[in-house]
Amino acid sequence: MNKIIHFSFIGGDLRQKSVMCSLANDGHKVCSFGFSKQLLSDAPFIICSPNLEECVKHADVVILPLPYGKEDYLNAPFSDDKIHTSDLLRCMDDKQLLFAGKVDERLKTLAALYNLHPIDYMEREELAVCNAIPTAEGALEIAMSETPYTLHGANCLVIGYGRIGKILSKDLQALGAYTYIAARKHADLAWIKANAMIPVPLPVLEHFIDIFDIIFNTAPAPLLDYKRLSLLQKDCLVIDLASPPGGVDFEAAGQLGRKVIKALSLPGKVAPNTAGEIIKDTIVNILEELGV
Amino acid sequence: MNKIIHFSFIGGDLRQKSVMCSLANDGHKVCSFGFSKQLLSDAPFIICSPNLEECVKHADVVILPLPYGKEDYLNAPFSDDKIHTSDLLRCMDDKQLLFAGKVDERLKTLAALYNLHPIDYMEREELAVCNAIPTAEGALEIAMSETPYTLHGANCLVIGYGRIGKILSKDLQALGAYTYIAARKHADLAWIKANAMIPVPLPVLEHFIDIFDIIFNTAPAPLLDYKRLSLLQKDCLVIDLASPPGGVDFEAAGQLGRKVIKALSLPGKVAPNTAGEIIKDTIVNILEELGV
Amino acid sequence: MNKIIHFSFIGGDLRQKSVMCSLANDGHKVCSFGFSKQLLSDAPFIICSPNLEECVKHADVVILPLPYGKEDYLNAPFSDDKIHTSDLLRCMDDKQLLFAGKVDERLKTLAALYNLHPIDYMEREELAVCNAIPTAEGALEIAMSETPYTLHGANCLVIGYGRIGKILSKDLQALGAYTYIAARKHADLAWIKANAMIPVPLPVLEHFIDIFDIIFNTAPAPLLDYKRLSLLQKDCLVIDLASPPGGVDFEAAGQLGRKVIKALSLPGKVAPNTAGEIIKDTIVNILEELGV
Amino acid sequence: MNKIIHFSFIGGDLRQKSVMCSLANDGHKVCSFGFSKQLLSDAPFIICSPNLEECVKHADVVILPLPYGKEDYLNAPFSDDKIHTSDLLRCMDDKQLLFAGKVDERLKTLAALYNLHPIDYMEREELAVCNAIPTAEGALEIAMSETPYTLHGANCLVIGYGRIGKILSKDLQALGAYTYIAARKHADLAWIKANAMIPVPLPVLEHFIDIFDIIFNTAPAPLLDYKRLSLLQKDCLVIDLASPPGGVDFEAAGQLGRKVIKALSLPGKVAPNTAGEIIKDTIVNILEELGV
Repeated sequence: MNKIIHFSFIGGDLRQKSVMCSLANDGHKVCSFGFSKQLLSDAPFIICSPNLEECVKHADVVILPLPYGKEDYLNAPFSDDKIHTSDLLRCMDDKQLLFAGKVDERLKTLAALYNLHPIDYMEREELAVCNAIPTAEGALEIAMSETPYTLHGANCLVIGYGRIGKILSKDLQALGAYTYIAARKHADLAWIKANAMIPVPLPVLEHFIDIFDIIFNTAPAPLLDYKRLSLLQKDCLVIDLASPPGGVDFEAAGQLGRKVIKALSLPGKVAPNTAGEIIKDTIVNILEELGV
Repeated sequence: MNKIIHFSFIGGDLRQKSVMCSLANDGHKVCSFGFSKQLLSDAPFIICSPNLEECVKHADVVILPLPYGKEDYLNAPFSDDKIHTSDLLRCMDDKQLLFAGKVDERLKTLAALYNLHPIDYMEREELAVCNAIPTAEGALEIAMSETPYTLHGANCLVIGYGRIGKILSKDLQALGAYTYIAARKHADLAWIKANAMIPVPLPVLEHFIDIFDIIFNTAPAPLLDYKRLSLLQKDCLVIDLASPPGGVDFEAAGQLGRKVIKALSLPGKVAPNTAGEIIKDTIVNILEELGV
Repeated sequence: MNKIIHFSFIGGDLRQKSVMCSLANDGHKVCSFGFSKQLLSDAPFIICSPNLEECVKHADVVILPLPYGKEDYLNAPFSDDKIHTSDLLRCMDDKQLLFAGKVDERLKTLAALYNLHPIDYMEREELAVCNAIPTAEGALEIAMSETPYTLHGANCLVIGYGRIGKILSKDLQALGAYTYIAARKHADLAWIKANAMIPVPLPVLEHFIDIFDIIFNTAPAPLLDYKRLSLLQKDCLVIDLASPPGGVDFEAAGQLGRKVIKALSLPGKVAPNTAGEIIKDTIVNILEELGV
Repeated sequence: MNKIIHFSFIGGDLRQKSVMCSLANDGHKVCSFGFSKQLLSDAPFIICSPNLEECVKHADVVILPLPYGKEDYLNAPFSDDKIHTSDLLRCMDDKQLLFAGKVDERLKTLAALYNLHPIDYMEREELAVCNAIPTAEGALEIAMSETPYTLHGANCLVIGYGRIGKILSKDLQALGAYTYIAARKHADLAWIKANAMIPVPLPVLEHFIDIFDIIFNTAPAPLLDYKRLSLLQKDCLVIDLASPPGGVDFEAAGQLGRKVIKALSLPGKVAPNTAGEIIKDTIVNILEELGV
């Protein structure tokens, strides 16, 4: 991407600020609407437009936040006024590219009326991979601050060996935790062994579950049910990283007095700058593939 | 697999010996035909049958080698006599299970005549994952013995980030090599970065290729062509691990005086015991899934 | 140490509780005085004695906290009453062993009057090594919570390659940080290279110091002076782990608006259980060497 | 070392060639005597002098091999003629620096007659640290080629936690071996635990020694005596890396039929280029400290 591109950002949180700064640093033109002028005071190269139409008019690419919005309005927590999604679409023409996070049917349908086809940067595999890094670090930070012992030497179980499970288990092992990973598929169990960690086939998990100091759940399935929770050590800490509805029976945990922490959307919370860099890299990848 | 199973092994090399020993150690009955009596002299629990029909008669499971054979005959390098595939199939009945490596159409068709459906243990994902471990170690051993410097501090490139690429690059990095990985997909490049190694997008490989001391190719594509080979350092060592036809233009390498080593079937060569254990684990997994 | 030993603990904080629990779990007799009865309510095997003389009378070994005390009194933050050091010594006879943390001339002189020779468990090399683990984890936790980006991908400098420097740098590298270590001695620089991290000879530190996102100082020397601090990136986070007076010119840092965090006594703060286990292991080692 | 220095190399093996090439690449003047003209044919910047006096006359620094020699003669395996140590010393004046490997009393005394004070680069700590890297890699290479299984998953014991023990155990662990380390000192055992490997206190080694597939000895003490050797697994491979007399009772090993490989001077054998680079870096460090 050697040519200078004109980006317009509508709404967004601290992650979008990081995206904007990074694109401006690369020499692109960046204009924002519906963000906080004050929060951009240390970023003089970003134009804060007071007017939506003005901001969008010269844009090659319009970027919406992550998630893009809710019902009729864009996600703009730092804006004084609400921004109607239709108001934005009306300002655009079909030669402009529209990027957004978590595009849904509602946005697709609405955009189609204006001959626009929103591109969802959240659906890109590389963004999901990269987001697993701040998620894993956020989980480590929670585990460190919530326990009176070190991760080094602790018995840790990671349930699930997807993106987050892979990176989190690598980090735990590197810090000196005894790292067990529960998985169902033979191929995953083989990878776990290949990576010199201890595989736990899901069907036998019950026989081992009482040795763990900390359990990280990454699997979006109700695996930590009443029975398994009842077998845990009294002081075992459970951190649930799976998307809602998560993998823990919270009611059972409450009855049993288990300590469970639900940790969602960690990248934006623990490392907004990194999360922004990841979004930016993904947008650049998409633009390069489109030949922009 | 708690019950005792009767296995018959027909033909095979040192890896099959390792499979037989391991199954016998687990308490199963193991009979072999077409293997070397002498090579089994330290394994008294394995029955060496002098007669094919006798050997197969009581078997629950019949195991053929990897690959199972060539044209009309089974792969039996330690047998004095050739073993005709049909002769084996004729001895079996359709209640017995038949396992084989690299099952092809020829075997399928022939077996179908006897109402038999050979199961290919080579096609299992967990076998492929596990085999990447001895392949990577074999590649390290070659690199160590063929260079007058240590891997520690060497500039190493791994082309491809599949199973072998993942494990080999992890090993190289752990030994202190500067580890670069060339890949095409954005998601692979993201994984490489997540694993704290240096990603090289394939389109820009040419600009970096002259810094490497050792290049390991794992991609089954003609990526090391005349042009790229011509850019290498004079003393750069290339190790081609990709299945035939491999990834190196050997004619060009010869003209250019590049040192290229073709390294195939490493697990059976550098670590037959480990290779056997892997086959055995895979067979056990399949039998458990079949409810045997 | 196969025989049952009678321990008496006088004073102490949460770490001493962990020491007591662990010794009681190993089957030893443990009596405490000057600790909180309430805090020991979940540890029924530890006797809470209401009387100092009673508590000490049958002890084989008397254990004082870390540090053992200040001026005339023992360190007993959970005790309602102050405990005079002499009052304890008066209860002991010279066949009992006395252990204490940070033994000074004052305690030595006083104890000598009673023919007692306090053993300082803090002076043991293995305790110092083990304490570097929770110190390093505590430093990571601070770095994670104080920065809006991940350690993965961050430029981190560790100053000093002693115990904490070695473990902290290993952790940082494992989490994917670009890990630089500044040291003076050629042998240390060689170890850093051997461990595949980036050595920075102290004399050239100034030329690189502006690239770092986070600096961890472990060297007890005024290395981060006005000049070096002035060269830092505006947002660079400095975490000073060195014992007082530390390694940072705080006045200069204040003038320059640098963000510096002084992090002392991390083991007891971030991981009291682990810190207790370490003290306990050290005491057991000493007793074994003494043939107890 | 910014100024150009004139080096003379007398005698030496392939490592010295690597030292010469590297110094010449840095822009220094390099003259050699008693080396093979043919072996230097690809290094045109190194002057091959036919005459000792000529070669030494203009030198700032004269470098002898590692070890420098034996009895009256210098170590010059590639020289057609023997080179008498006195003949060299006679050509030097006391303003020239003399470097040598493994300086002994004989050389010191002889050199003193000419007012020369040889500097032993082998005694430098950083050289010993760096040499542990090729030693460890050489040990891995031997282990890989002498066993029919992978290091990944093998039970490996390293005896001793000095320089070689530290680097070798790190490498083994990284390759996925179950890595145990036997040591005597509590502080070493603490480091082993801190590095997430399995410490084996020497006094209890006997109780575990029968589980190992490979044993690497790095301790210069007769630890693998008849009794311990008799307890090994039949197929256990022992690699003795300790300086003579080593740590294995070879006679006992022979009687017991144990497989023992004595591996000495690995850096020069498996990685002469790396070994040369290490010598060169050490010489440069010494010259810098001398203010040359």
